[in-house]
Amino acid sequence: MSDTSTAAYTAEAARLDAADELAKHREKFALDDTVYLDGNSLGALPAHVPARMADVITRQWGELRIRSWDESGWWTAPERIGDRIAPLVGAADGQIVVGDSTSVNVFKAVVAATRLAGGDRDEILVDATTFPTDGYIAASAARMTGHRIVPLDPAEMPGAVTGRTALALVNHVDYRTGRLQDLPGVTAALHAAGALAVWDLCHSAGALPVGLDAHGVDLAVGCTYKYLNGGPGAPAYLYVAERHQARFDSPLPGWNSHADPFGMTPDYRAAEGAPRGRVGTPDILSMLSLEAALDVWDGVRIEDVRAKSLALTDFFLECVRAYAPEGRVTSVTPEAHAERGSQVALRCAEAPAVMAELIRRGVVGDLRRPDVLRFGFTPLYVGFADAERAARVLGEVLRDIPAG
Amino acid sequence: MSDTSTAAYTAEAARLDAADELAKHREKFALDDTVYLDGNSLGALPAHVPARMADVITRQWGELRIRSWDESGWWTAPERIGDRIAPLVGAADGQIVVGDSTSVNVFKAVVAATRLAGGDRDEILVDATTFPTDGYIAASAARMTGHRIVPLDPAEMPGAVTGRTALALVNHVDYRTGRLQDLPGVTAALHAAGALAVWDLCHSAGALPVGLDAHGVDLAVGCTYKYLNGGPGAPAYLYVAERHQARFDSPLPGWNSHADPFGMTPDYRAAEGAPRGRVGTPDILSMLSLEAALDVWDGVRIEDVRAKSLALTDFFLECVRAYAPEGRVTSVTPEAHAERGSQVALRCAEAPAVMAELIRRGVVGDLRRPDVLRFGFTPLYVGFADAERAARVLGEVLRDIPAG
Repeated sequence: MSDTSTAAYTAEAARLDAADELAKHREKFALDDTVYLDGNSLGALPAHVPARMADVITRQWGELRIRSWDESGWWTAPERIGDRIAPLVGAADGQIVVGDSTSVNVFKAVVAATRLAGGDRDEILVDATTFPTDGYIAASAARMTGHRIVPLDPAEMPGAVTGRTALALVNHVDYRTGRLQDLPGVTAALHAAGALAVWDLCHSAGALPVGLDAHGVDLAVGCTYKYLNGGPGAPAYLYVAERHQARFDSPLPGWNSHADPFGMTPDYRAAEGAPRGRVGTPDILSMLSLEAALDVWDGVRIEDVRAKSLALTDFFLECVRAYAPEGRVTSVTPEAHAERGSQVALRCAEAPAVMAELIRRGVVGDLRRPDVLRFGFTPLYVGFADAERAARVLGEVLRDIPAG
Repeated sequence: MSDTSTAAYTAEAARLDAADELAKHREKFALDDTVYLDGNSLGALPAHVPARMADVITRQWGELRIRSWDESGWWTAPERIGDRIAPLVGAADGQIVVGDSTSVNVFKAVVAATRLAGGDRDEILVDATTFPTDGYIAASAARMTGHRIVPLDPAEMPGAVTGRTALALVNHVDYRTGRLQDLPGVTAALHAAGALAVWDLCHSAGALPVGLDAHGVDLAVGCTYKYLNGGPGAPAYLYVAERHQARFDSPLPGWNSHADPFGMTPDYRAAEGAPRGRVGTPDILSMLSLEAALDVWDGVRIEDVRAKSLALTDFFLECVRAYAPEGRVTSVTPEAHAERGSQVALRCAEAPAVMAELIRRGVVGDLRRPDVLRFGFTPLYVGFADAERAARVLGEVLRDIPAG
């Protein structure tokens, strides 16, 4: 790489950063001189969260103690925080409840969807390219409900759905390649055959518009520790479209989902609305960290986030082409904007050694074994200079670590 | 109540507090002049937890970010913290994993127990006096596995277990009355008929010796926000006896329970040992708050906790008999030590108004509808003067609120 082109790309990055309307949000986060491109695994700490959590722990728990279930709004946190996430994924209020892990929510959603589908529908289509936990949990659900799992590439689903299909479980963005699946098209094809669409939004929520209500998605799950910056292992969420709530029949009907939880009656009667998706006592510390973290979205339009995300990944790919030695890395992330999430995945034969060295030099992405370098772009706190520096350091590392 | 007897009881309380070897642990907690008798619902804040959590949030999450999964020991927290709980419930290392809510762990345990029982055993005995979530979840599990629920008083279980019994799910201490069930006897009776014993330790762990290994319990669950002081909604735990681990077949086989979770292979292969009970990404903030809170148990023998707990509840009952107007409250907590947990439950026709006024006057217990006043005794931070004051204020409140 010539000094001339380095100068050109750094200048271009500076120009893009100066014109970036979202750049001002970076100061809301606790950052250092690392280029942090792993916010698609663990979002960075919003700078105001430590003080908020100190209050939660010291005053709400330490002083108010049990009274905080009412006085600090702990009891209603799962629905309240669900309504904070709702606009980011295109859902009206009252359809999202926060709690449990993504895996547990996949179980609720898949079992409940088989019950909503009913009748003779005995097949569950599962995204064969999915993050594995979805497949493991769907297989367990199918084993318990007597359904058959049909693994498919999401692109094949519209052609494969039949009158036997109960539902499809699909990842909106492939965690490995960063491919954005066709949520509107796949959902419409499922509906045309009378089947339900269950979407996993882990790698899309907070990075791009999802449009759950607009596209008629039936059920959805997602995590909150990636683009939503809720903190390590922050609770996941469950979306149940309003039209399905009255018939939503959870396989995990814990006391928190009861219509009268403090009646403590031996008979179960499900709550109305989103609380029906609750299970046990919510993990308040993790949950209120998420609630605080969501403040960074105040005044942010997800459409603007999407535009910057695409500009960032475009620019990063351009810099990689310029800086990386010929033939050493190949992007497995789609070029087409309509098919790209908010990450770039580069196949590289020396990926484990290269990622370790990148991290050592202050560029943090992650490795997806055996050979994928994964770089996540979180538009609220990653800028174009970060993208240029990451690509430049990648080029240097590739020159320092010889091929095979 | 005469001034003479008040003086006698306050003097007796002072004498008991002065002789109390556990009294020194009170200073480990953030307390005020409230008499906090609701630690069986939400344990008080250990005073060192805020600083520990500030480090977790600001340094581990904020500075190390994704590296903390390895460098701060996040990934191994569920088993590591399980091993911290193990000695409190009489379990050897490697059998307890922390994570998810109690309800979710009941689901894992009940379904896995039906699979371990196998064969023609189609009945699940469920403690009819249980905290309701256990019954709701057991019913859901039974619906999915094709078993039949048989609700019984735990005392009836030894006479009811047959060759059709797969398992019994029993609460060690009744959340409402405070009755301690016969864990060794019920477990032995189940085993004699070839059935499994699944115990819920929510109201016993941290209050009295449980002896999971010694009594051959098969599976157990419990929460950590009561006597273990883990914080609001701190994660629950699952005990799987070592002899069952190889055949433990979870209905929630999330990626965290995979033998090679970062292999991210489409085929599921269960981890060995306690991690097989994991599901999804652990809620690290809630979990590390629990880990910090467990430090208060350093140097504490659970047998000493039990002895003080019984002395406290004995003394409280004695004071209530002395202070409460005749006929206004009736204890539903067993007199016999062998049948008593660490709480006192008083039936009172005016319970809602009485508890509200008690709280207003600085004595915090809780109400279990419709008519139970519940007072939990947490021996690490509740003393005999607290017990005397609580009974004295109760007497005053009962005189001020006339009988219905």
